Amino acid sequence: MREFILNPRLVTATLPVGDLPLCRVLLLNEQRYPWYLLVPRRPGIEEIVDLQAADRSVLMEEITWVSRAVKAEFNPFRLNIADIGNKAPQLHIHVVARNPNDEAWPAVVWSRPLVSFNADDKSRKWQQQMRNALTVTGQFIARSEHVDPGVERL
Amino acid sequence: MREFILNPRLVTATLPVGDLPLCRVLLLNEQRYPWYLLVPRRPGIEEIVDLQAADRSVLMEEITWVSRAVKAEFNPFRLNIADIGNKAPQLHIHVVARNPNDEAWPAVVWSRPLVSFNADDKSRKWQQQMRNALTVTGQFIARSEHVDPGVERL
Repeated sequence: MREFILNPRLVTATLPVGDLPLCRVLLLNEQRYPWYLLVPRRPGIEEIVDLQAADRSVLMEEITWVSRAVKAEFNPFRLNIADIGNKAPQLHIHVVARNPNDEAWPAVVWSRPLVSFNADDKSRKWQQQMRNALTVTGQFIARSEHVDPGVERL
Repeated sequence: MREFILNPRLVTATLPVGDLPLCRVLLLNEQRYPWYLLVPRRPGIEEIVDLQAADRSVLMEEITWVSRAVKAEFNPFRLNIADIGNKAPQLHIHVVARNPNDEAWPAVVWSRPLVSFNADDKSRKWQQQMRNALTVTGQFIARSEHVDPGVERL
């Protein structure tokens, strides 16, 4: 049985948050919107329809937990949730906090240049806010870190 | 208890397909991509997190049926699936067939000008293909038609 390995594009584009029972939760390296990803830790899955039915049901609940966490922590006007994967062929679900005064509104945030976090601590705050909010659900398993082949990064 | 009424923006932008147990299925009036919408027939629902847990689970399965139907009928390279709703405040899930030779690839199709169907019969074909593919699942309830206040349109 193959092992789950986070797609290198997703490693590069994100900061780690932690694991729910099914999904790895990541924070996109984008300072303008709280923007999280859920990646089911199943090898070889590219689309929602590739998942087993039981995993799809868990995925929906984990999307809901992350959505509620984003709402509780950031109080957005709207959540934008999507499975796109045109560039990174590993199933990942975007959950993005959107507001009428954000830079892209009312357009979508995808397919636009990203603006990375600065050296400030906003990214650490957003990582920790999600960890705290998911811990409250009782479903948060563990913090995760990004692992490169042979190199563990903090 | 309030009745489900399809949001007027969604009525205007789409052609009817039919009903699954939870969702109304629609075809977006856009000729370049097979692009379907699922709208849970529950009044007052704007986001996935507003649904009851049982409905969320059904929604995930209906997304899967429509996804499989799109794959079977159009054999796309990738499905793009999203809940956005920045303009129409009624929960609707996009399921779009995407290919590397389509006009937007690899960008997303949202927030771009739409190109409506011509007078040709492609829209009727795409409506009927989805009806046929959903009928095979045994879960297709009925064709639906758009209803304006006081006016029923074919």
